[in-house]
Amino acid sequence: MTTEVEDFLNEWHRIVAERDLDGLRRVLAPEITMGAPPYWARIEGHARVHHLLGLIVNTIEGFTYHREWVQGFELALEFTGRVGELDVQGIDLITLDDRLVITRLDVMIRPMNALEALRDIITPQMVAFLQAEES
Amino acid sequence: MTTEVEDFLNEWHRIVAERDLDGLRRVLAPEITMGAPPYWARIEGHARVHHLLGLIVNTIEGFTYHREWVQGFELALEFTGRVGELDVQGIDLITLDDRLVITRLDVMIRPMNALEALRDIITPQMVAFLQAEES
Repeated sequence: MTTEVEDFLNEWHRIVAERDLDGLRRVLAPEITMGAPPYWARIEGHARVHHLLGLIVNTIEGFTYHREWVQGFELALEFTGRVGELDVQGIDLITLDDRLVITRLDVMIRPMNALEALRDIITPQMVAFLQAEES
Repeated sequence: MTTEVEDFLNEWHRIVAERDLDGLRRVLAPEITMGAPPYWARIEGHARVHHLLGLIVNTIEGFTYHREWVQGFELALEFTGRVGELDVQGIDLITLDDRLVITRLDVMIRPMNALEALRDIITPQMVAFLQAEES
């Protein structure tokens, strides 16, 4: 792992631990796309991904990172946490570019009941955000 | 990546592509535990994990592997496929031991509707298997 990617990783861990939504803004590329756990269609662009990721980071409690894989600018980061009372295990698949910002992010979680709970919390807020964007 | 792990990976790809359930039997450790996409409780032991994994491999069509991360005996393998009409993206987190068999496997998939469809197909069959085991 290069020092640059190591720095990115430290910053990512700090952002998630501190729920630093301003810091989060700085590590997302303008053209980022995100594959979110509940939906198939990718969320596109900085504003939408930042909002959705903020909702997820604020909804999952006790975010703890475990195994981490790094190959060049492709990262896979395993985490655990809780959605309400429910345990959750997940993975962030992150693609960086040479600006050291995230251009592609995919998040998958298990089990079903935690995914369902996460979706029920974030979907209404995401819908409200998209409607406000249009108006 | 060592040659041993590379051989394992080639064999894993072959097993999944050919749905080779006998081959699958050989790469699972007796004491394997699996975190399956729908359930939180881990599935324990060779017979149960082999059965569940067989159901998953037979349910997901068009299994294709993409990004793969290897660090020692810890692997993260991204895949896509379909559950019925639904697209699915997933990850296998695999721990090998020095016998080159899987001692721990975690599988996560997105999106929600594909996970739901997978659960609806595999759960009744897994329940039937566990009931037969007990009798």
